Amino acid sequence: MIRVTKRVEFCAAHRYANPRWSDEENRQRFGKAANLHGHNYVLEVTIQGTPAPDTGMVMDLKALKDLIADAVLERLDHKNLNVDVPALAGRLPTPENLAVVIWGLLAPRLPAGGLYRVRLHADDRSYVDYYGEVCRP
Amino acid sequence: MIRVTKRVEFCAAHRYANPRWSDEENRQRFGKAANLHGHNYVLEVTIQGTPAPDTGMVMDLKALKDLIADAVLERLDHKNLNVDVPALAGRLPTPENLAVVIWGLLAPRLPAGGLYRVRLHADDRSYVDYYGEVCRP
Amino acid sequence: MIRVTKRVEFCAAHRYANPRWSDEENRQRFGKAANLHGHNYVLEVTIQGTPAPDTGMVMDLKALKDLIADAVLERLDHKNLNVDVPALAGRLPTPENLAVVIWGLLAPRLPAGGLYRVRLHADDRSYVDYYGEVCRP
Amino acid sequence: MIRVTKRVEFCAAHRYANPRWSDEENRQRFGKAANLHGHNYVLEVTIQGTPAPDTGMVMDLKALKDLIADAVLERLDHKNLNVDVPALAGRLPTPENLAVVIWGLLAPRLPAGGLYRVRLHADDRSYVDYYGEVCRP
Amino acid sequence: MIRVTKRVEFCAAHRYANPRWSDEENRQRFGKAANLHGHNYVLEVTIQGTPAPDTGMVMDLKALKDLIADAVLERLDHKNLNVDVPALAGRLPTPENLAVVIWGLLAPRLPAGGLYRVRLHADDRSYVDYYGEVCRP
Amino acid sequence: MIRVTKRVEFCAAHRYANPRWSDEENRQRFGKAANLHGHNYVLEVTIQGTPAPDTGMVMDLKALKDLIADAVLERLDHKNLNVDVPALAGRLPTPENLAVVIWGLLAPRLPAGGLYRVRLHADDRSYVDYYGEVCRP
Repeated sequence: MIRVTKRVEFCAAHRYANPRWSDEENRQRFGKAANLHGHNYVLEVTIQGTPAPDTGMVMDLKALKDLIADAVLERLDHKNLNVDVPALAGRLPTPENLAVVIWGLLAPRLPAGGLYRVRLHADDRSYVDYYGEVCRP
Repeated sequence: MIRVTKRVEFCAAHRYANPRWSDEENRQRFGKAANLHGHNYVLEVTIQGTPAPDTGMVMDLKALKDLIADAVLERLDHKNLNVDVPALAGRLPTPENLAVVIWGLLAPRLPAGGLYRVRLHADDRSYVDYYGEVCRP
Repeated sequence: MIRVTKRVEFCAAHRYANPRWSDEENRQRFGKAANLHGHNYVLEVTIQGTPAPDTGMVMDLKALKDLIADAVLERLDHKNLNVDVPALAGRLPTPENLAVVIWGLLAPRLPAGGLYRVRLHADDRSYVDYYGEVCRP
Repeated sequence: MIRVTKRVEFCAAHRYANPRWSDEENRQRFGKAANLHGHNYVLEVTIQGTPAPDTGMVMDLKALKDLIADAVLERLDHKNLNVDVPALAGRLPTPENLAVVIWGLLAPRLPAGGLYRVRLHADDRSYVDYYGEVCRP
Repeated sequence: MIRVTKRVEFCAAHRYANPRWSDEENRQRFGKAANLHGHNYVLEVTIQGTPAPDTGMVMDLKALKDLIADAVLERLDHKNLNVDVPALAGRLPTPENLAVVIWGLLAPRLPAGGLYRVRLHADDRSYVDYYGEVCRP
Repeated sequence: MIRVTKRVEFCAAHRYANPRWSDEENRQRFGKAANLHGHNYVLEVTIQGTPAPDTGMVMDLKALKDLIADAVLERLDHKNLNVDVPALAGRLPTPENLAVVIWGLLAPRLPAGGLYRVRLHADDRSYVDYYGEVCRP
């Protein structure tokens, strides 16, 4: 069993604003993040499996990159995450919620058990990890 | 003469859209960048001077950081660059135009000749340099 | 369950010197590291939990940053680790020992089970990971 | 139990070409990677153990670096991976296969259970992880 | 006048071997670099000009990226620099010689005076800069 | 004319304390930096010249690395900059003063005009550049 991680980048706009709260409450709770702003996100997708004897690869990295582009970047890159992403409707566009959404976009298009981890960096100072609904020790 | 560079980060939203063009023209010219999106910008400000004998510093880095925060980040960080920045009115929020705006915000608050270069990275793959209206060889 | 990692930096001085050994023995064992020197440390703190429905966050990153500043950086940043840190008394200020100390400073101030990992980089070529007294597979 | 990771770099040439396939088949399957080319590899070796009370170290980083140099870099650095590495004979020089080979070179020279993970980056956009024949959750 | 830098990556194989010297002499002079090996190169191309009023850009970064891909990467990416690059015939494939070759590939396809600098990193520890045949102070 | 830059790292301890000022004055002026602490420094040395026809190199990078190790690192690496460095006597160990000292250690051991720039990073957020006593535009 080997794990293979592919790293891609995308950029998007968002703001933190709970629609059930007033502007004032959102500003108190989220500070400057209640303003519309944006990020260069770095997404790391980790898959796992056994290398094929003919190619020595768990999955061709070019195919994995194309899959991420088609399943994820097409929906998130150069978007306003508060408006343009149906899968986020009703949820704040935090890295945590984005990671769960990205997992949901990728897992059905990979072999069962093939997706191991979604890691999302919103900047150089923080990142989140999601492993699906299993509980990794 | 020594040059000292301070690096800071900010994030903002923007889109490329010339208001004299139709949506269709903007999309043809700018592609995905015509959508609202955003970036983590990295700003490098370079000053120059002679170290003070008492401190061995051209300028205290904490003072330079505070000056950048007050003069630049206060106006650009967590903003929508198409809407919230008067100094950009009538100009597209490209790194080139941003660098000129940032120069204009910093130069008057530094000694004459003290600001050497403004470098702005919109992502890890590109950056722009502005040296004011002098022509550096 | 989602894991969230916050990265911060601090700098400190230290030397490797076992007080039960002679200077000569310390030099033989630790080489140049027996001299007083210093590092820019990069600390990554990983917490885990379920995002709150109202905010989409496991923990506000600003609150996590403030907690790390108050619990850890206040004690380690701009310090001489051989002299200024009571929690290290009697132990060499290696990354391994520092990671255990940092865990002890953070864990009591987070929900039970909320602290997952302390990662400490002393330079770009090495880092240590500590998961508390549990044994992660 | 603490984990300690040491990062080293090496560079090597390789091409992807299954000797049972024609040049044409290799080109169709592997694209440009069927040409001879090369990489700067970044190798991260993670060991685990309990810090020694006298030194506060799981293993001296200098000793770990020397072990990696002797066991791994001596065989892979500045080599043509398709020709010069007996342990890769009959296998394509993919990161997956390289990680397994590197594990095999290091594990016998460390205490039982002491080697935790081999991570290999072929570029800044991807990496593979190998944990030996155990199955990490 | 603003300078705009675009960063791209490519990978290639090479060895240092002066064909007028014996294998033994090449090995004495170049050490391990006389073996076939390879690198991930990072190329930074800097152009200069005045932003167009309509777009706020010196040159569209996508157009610059496409130009670099067509003029440079097509000839160098996934190649054996000792064999596959006519422009290097008779010269060792050092970063210095590569930078001059890259300048020659790009300058004729940009406006006169538009190309300012070619910077080439062969690894994270070194880079070369070439400014054409002018002498920058 | 080509410029070649070599990057090396070293680590050292220091504190900012003007011996003509009281402890209280030093603390007021320098804040936490008046405490003994330390850094991982990154030093970039840029030389310039014409590549030799036989080797395609301005200077062998291994020879440049060895020169920096012998002339600079031997004096600064794993040192207490306030105590162990005669060339800094009477001056605060700021990056500005260090860059001038490093220039003085390197320039006499390179061909006249061969040393172009000394760049010193004390952390990821700042760096200084020194070009000797010439005034670069």
